[in-house]
Amino acid sequence: MGTSGWNAIAPHTLSLIITVLCIFISSMSSVQSQMNVWPKPRSISWSNPQAALLSPIFSINSPTHQYLSPAVNRYLRLILTEHNHPIVTPAVNLTASTPPLQTLTITVADLTSPLQHGVDESYTLIIPTDVGSANLTAGTVWGAMRGLETFSQLVWGEPSRVAVGVYVWDSPIFGHRGLMLDTSRNYYEVEDILRTIGAMSANKLNVFHWHITDSHSFPLVLPSEPDLALKGSYGPQMQYTPADVNRIVQFGLEHGVRVLPEIDSPGHTGSWAEAYPEIVTCANMFWWPAGVDWADRLASEPGTGHLNPLNPKTYQVLQNVLRDVASLFPEPFYHAGADEIIPGCWKADPTVQTFLSNGGTLSQLLEKFINSTFPLIVSLNRTVVYWEDVLLDANVKVNPTMIPPENTILQTWNNGPNNTKRIVSSGYRAIVSSSDFYYLDCGHGDFLGNDSQYDQKTAGSDTGNGGSWCGPFKTWQTIYNYDITYGLNEEEARLVLGGEVALWSEQADPSVLDARIWPRASAMAETLWSGNRDETGMKRYAEATDRLNEWRYRMVSRGVGAEPIQPLWCIRNPGMCNTVQPFV
Amino acid sequence: MGTSGWNAIAPHTLSLIITVLCIFISSMSSVQSQMNVWPKPRSISWSNPQAALLSPIFSINSPTHQYLSPAVNRYLRLILTEHNHPIVTPAVNLTASTPPLQTLTITVADLTSPLQHGVDESYTLIIPTDVGSANLTAGTVWGAMRGLETFSQLVWGEPSRVAVGVYVWDSPIFGHRGLMLDTSRNYYEVEDILRTIGAMSANKLNVFHWHITDSHSFPLVLPSEPDLALKGSYGPQMQYTPADVNRIVQFGLEHGVRVLPEIDSPGHTGSWAEAYPEIVTCANMFWWPAGVDWADRLASEPGTGHLNPLNPKTYQVLQNVLRDVASLFPEPFYHAGADEIIPGCWKADPTVQTFLSNGGTLSQLLEKFINSTFPLIVSLNRTVVYWEDVLLDANVKVNPTMIPPENTILQTWNNGPNNTKRIVSSGYRAIVSSSDFYYLDCGHGDFLGNDSQYDQKTAGSDTGNGGSWCGPFKTWQTIYNYDITYGLNEEEARLVLGGEVALWSEQADPSVLDARIWPRASAMAETLWSGNRDETGMKRYAEATDRLNEWRYRMVSRGVGAEPIQPLWCIRNPGMCNTVQPFV
Repeated sequence: MGTSGWNAIAPHTLSLIITVLCIFISSMSSVQSQMNVWPKPRSISWSNPQAALLSPIFSINSPTHQYLSPAVNRYLRLILTEHNHPIVTPAVNLTASTPPLQTLTITVADLTSPLQHGVDESYTLIIPTDVGSANLTAGTVWGAMRGLETFSQLVWGEPSRVAVGVYVWDSPIFGHRGLMLDTSRNYYEVEDILRTIGAMSANKLNVFHWHITDSHSFPLVLPSEPDLALKGSYGPQMQYTPADVNRIVQFGLEHGVRVLPEIDSPGHTGSWAEAYPEIVTCANMFWWPAGVDWADRLASEPGTGHLNPLNPKTYQVLQNVLRDVASLFPEPFYHAGADEIIPGCWKADPTVQTFLSNGGTLSQLLEKFINSTFPLIVSLNRTVVYWEDVLLDANVKVNPTMIPPENTILQTWNNGPNNTKRIVSSGYRAIVSSSDFYYLDCGHGDFLGNDSQYDQKTAGSDTGNGGSWCGPFKTWQTIYNYDITYGLNEEEARLVLGGEVALWSEQADPSVLDARIWPRASAMAETLWSGNRDETGMKRYAEATDRLNEWRYRMVSRGVGAEPIQPLWCIRNPGMCNTVQPFV
Repeated sequence: MGTSGWNAIAPHTLSLIITVLCIFISSMSSVQSQMNVWPKPRSISWSNPQAALLSPIFSINSPTHQYLSPAVNRYLRLILTEHNHPIVTPAVNLTASTPPLQTLTITVADLTSPLQHGVDESYTLIIPTDVGSANLTAGTVWGAMRGLETFSQLVWGEPSRVAVGVYVWDSPIFGHRGLMLDTSRNYYEVEDILRTIGAMSANKLNVFHWHITDSHSFPLVLPSEPDLALKGSYGPQMQYTPADVNRIVQFGLEHGVRVLPEIDSPGHTGSWAEAYPEIVTCANMFWWPAGVDWADRLASEPGTGHLNPLNPKTYQVLQNVLRDVASLFPEPFYHAGADEIIPGCWKADPTVQTFLSNGGTLSQLLEKFINSTFPLIVSLNRTVVYWEDVLLDANVKVNPTMIPPENTILQTWNNGPNNTKRIVSSGYRAIVSSSDFYYLDCGHGDFLGNDSQYDQKTAGSDTGNGGSWCGPFKTWQTIYNYDITYGLNEEEARLVLGGEVALWSEQADPSVLDARIWPRASAMAETLWSGNRDETGMKRYAEATDRLNEWRYRMVSRGVGAEPIQPLWCIRNPGMCNTVQPFV
């Protein structure tokens, strides 16, 4: 990588260039050759499908930057060595008169914008036909990384060739495009997390929501509270040290992926009891005692334990946790959890019983907890993300005044578009993780033991969701077609920051990680980046099938074990595996 | 491996020893310590949980045998190096007075029995407490391999220890315990197939049903018909040569796994048209033309083509195929397919149209095909396996007299126990692969492109099978609990040879192979080996959960990427993840 040829330009000049370019692009022929870029750019033109050889001494000129420079190095290596073989070779002209592409020059208007929600990720990529050089222009280094990814996907074959006569203007529709991974129920190696973040970046996803802790294990080593991981993790080989976290955060920065930590509380905290039994109610109890109604169970699933809001020690520990996490993770959002308060767990505690018998309510308990933690999180300059339950739970919830919208974002997972609507119509920003559409773990049956529901059924009766509470399996098509602002007016829609697919790990661990996530997360990535409709407003899932197929094979060749979506035959015979005949 | 100390003993002597031993075992205390062997042996006793160290110079004395000797070498290496760490360490006594285990001596009554259906797979394994040596006795080398696997699972830790005071008598309930893999829709490397056969052997499965060809590709290189693969495979790197087949067959023999080839015909043969377009009807047509009723579609799914029973050339090609396959695969069963005849495909052909307009029927067409192929297969000393359709299809089927039960086995996949009953009550032997229970590919949605069924649904409406025709996903519990002789009388039940889980590859390829198969195939493996009930007749799925968990981790450590079935927490806290409280 070289840095020559780069000159910083003022943002307003860049803005003018982009405006002119957009007008230029939109006035061009609407003939679009099949261009296997995923996610599809907002605007891409390749009206005369031509390619040039990539020069063996191809180089990238780029400004020097702490995070962009490693990205440029990485992409240069990838571009020179990948030699991707598309399943269907692009029909392009490759004439002797077209000079090989020698350089890609990157221009960034503002090198200082930090990676945070709403940062400009737009870029313009121009690969002319005849000059042997290409230009990538972006407002920020993060936009430049997105453009590098697009460029890398325009290179294929051996010797490498690159599409030329290409004009791309690109910018995401939604600023928050995430993936949630639960590392508490089962543990993932740091390498698994890095590989996942790398694949996210290739899909232009930008938020790794790390659900680090839960009732099952507490793998995060915190300097001020070392006992939490020492006693609450699955073991010394199944912990994340501060050095591990730093490595993951830095890796994220070099890939344009924010690392958003979640320390779920006050529910989902059974693992805290290994170090501090006194601050956890109902810990290590059987989750659903015999003869007890479902409503009176102690946990949403096996693994009991809630932090006790009445014990001052709870807040001493939490303060240490919050300060440590804030210092480990530079990300300005902090996810505080607050989902699934199960009344039976708090009610199992004598001090809570006294509180309730004196006229207190469970919602007051939760309010006490939120009141004792929310201001501290805000004081650490963090915007607080909660699961929607804190406001929308039927039984245990807080008064909205305690979580002002300016400091609070709510992540929805129940009732599809209905709860999104409830959140934004109350003035809160929303992150959409509807379990009906975005939960990647659903559909693999239940994980409970001694479960008689699976005892032999006769033929035909074994339909339904297969015992998974959120079944069926969410196919890539289900995910691709979901419109996360469905039913919202324009003002409400503006409060939807974006979405996250989520992998809860009851039935996942490193052995299935890649295939559970990819390419289904790719489906959301495109919908949130450039939408799921073509220029005429039609859902573009038919066109997307072949392109996603190509992208899936490319991910596999890059070392990500994405699952196949069709027989190879279908990709080789475009349109022939459609439901609807493509020609009459 | 050494061979000293081995003496062949007469079968009747062995039989007497086993009888005496069984009486001895059954009279012992019923106290059963948790013994992590999968599948669970028919009879296992370890009344006083004790272990010995495994001597670092532990050796296996065994007769020299073409297939057993490589197996012994393999197990010896595994036993000395595996050092499995159980999630829950067995609570055993390990006293200084117990001598290390030095040798395992294998005695085989009949070294000549070939690997075929019904061969004796029983074995007796005795690991005494005090003598430093153990004995494995079996009727055949195949039974000895099963016993070696059991022995290997009784060794754990570093330094290695082995359970002693153990008495096992074991023998499968069903002789046919299989796994079907479709290598036509997507291709698998030879290494993937070998790894799968190795894992099958570890689960005491004994039939690899290889669905080699289908409409999508014809990967099998046949010396007499080389064009079928040359033109019909996915490419030169996606073929199985005779050397590959030989390697797979030999590997199977060294693992006690039969390799049962299927060349599906006359349906599912679109790929044959690349070499011989003249013998295939409706090839390369769109599978479901616009405006056409479902009943008049051309194929069960994209990928059209049926062999034309009226063209003599069809049988010239088929004879060559059959002779080549018979010489490549020593297995005495040959699977001839015959599923899913789609009327529209034959009707698309002019010669068929003439035949029908002259009063012929589609069933007569199929009869002509079967009559022209069945006798040849039988003449090659093969028992013919067909999918049930050949007899039970609603529209196109043959008269039973054409497929005499003595030469014919029917494999059922529709209507659960009902079709099994229809098959065996007609006097045919049955292999059970009910799609309601044993299809491993189900529940991942449909693979068709341009499919509007996945367009946005509102919350709550997205239930059902997720677009998979055979959804939901078959969980390990669903598979474990299925009783394949359900509803049969004793005589009928005797005609059920066993079962096969099946992985069709529309949405599977090497990237998901292991996790799609394991540990769900393990669930069937135990049910067919020793049943799914405990001594009292109760379904034993609760006990099986913890044991299957341990076995899944052991498979992963052996290089098989089986999917997890629970959070690690559940395994560490036995019983706590049950649906029903284990104690009050």
